[in-house]
Amino acid sequence: MAKADSLKLKIQLLCGDEIAMGPGKADLLDAIAAQGSISGAARAMDMSYRRAWLLVDAMNRCWREPLVETSPGRAKGGGARLSPAGRRVLDGYRALQATLDSTAHGDLLADLNSELRQEPKARAADA
Amino acid sequence: MAKADSLKLKIQLLCGDEIAMGPGKADLLDAIAAQGSISGAARAMDMSYRRAWLLVDAMNRCWREPLVETSPGRAKGGGARLSPAGRRVLDGYRALQATLDSTAHGDLLADLNSELRQEPKARAADA
Repeated sequence: MAKADSLKLKIQLLCGDEIAMGPGKADLLDAIAAQGSISGAARAMDMSYRRAWLLVDAMNRCWREPLVETSPGRAKGGGARLSPAGRRVLDGYRALQATLDSTAHGDLLADLNSELRQEPKARAADA
Repeated sequence: MAKADSLKLKIQLLCGDEIAMGPGKADLLDAIAAQGSISGAARAMDMSYRRAWLLVDAMNRCWREPLVETSPGRAKGGGARLSPAGRRVLDGYRALQATLDSTAHGDLLADLNSELRQEPKARAADA
């Protein structure tokens, strides 16, 4: 029997050539909502501030309304929070993930899993 | 209106740390079935023979039965074809893709698309 979580599902939403939403950006939005700043979210995700800022900038350029609102004021970089559009888009993306995940875990996947080894065989020594 | 195909869905099946099936491996199986050899499939996909061979080797080690059968005999590398297991796994993966794709194109995605721009806004000059 293959383990139940053999499935890896990656959902991306594209806007032109840019990725408007995906697993990493959604996690960053969750972290911003939890931490209250882009710098705090970057720290929590072990990501550079610059990378987090670039991801936020890409999201804010891809959607009709900015997903993240920043406010100046604090000593270092100010606070950040999800806009109402940010909350709607994040919730919608999570709902899409949950729907597809639940749809995927049906008979088709069970049939595939029954043919899958638990661990790969070793490579041939002369490969 | 965002374009209808903003969605990019990537489905992978893992076996331990290896990717047993995914978009590239499924396309390679299709190409092997069409071309009748690994070298022909590699050419058709503009991929090196070595890379195609490594992908086939990974698949053959991840599934209980080999997905690709090779036969010696031809001048250069011999022929290759899908085994019965290879055909089942490829068909199952394609069916899973089709099911998830059709499930994804519903109200949740329509709501997200309605918030998506058609093209991203330009980066700020001082970004």
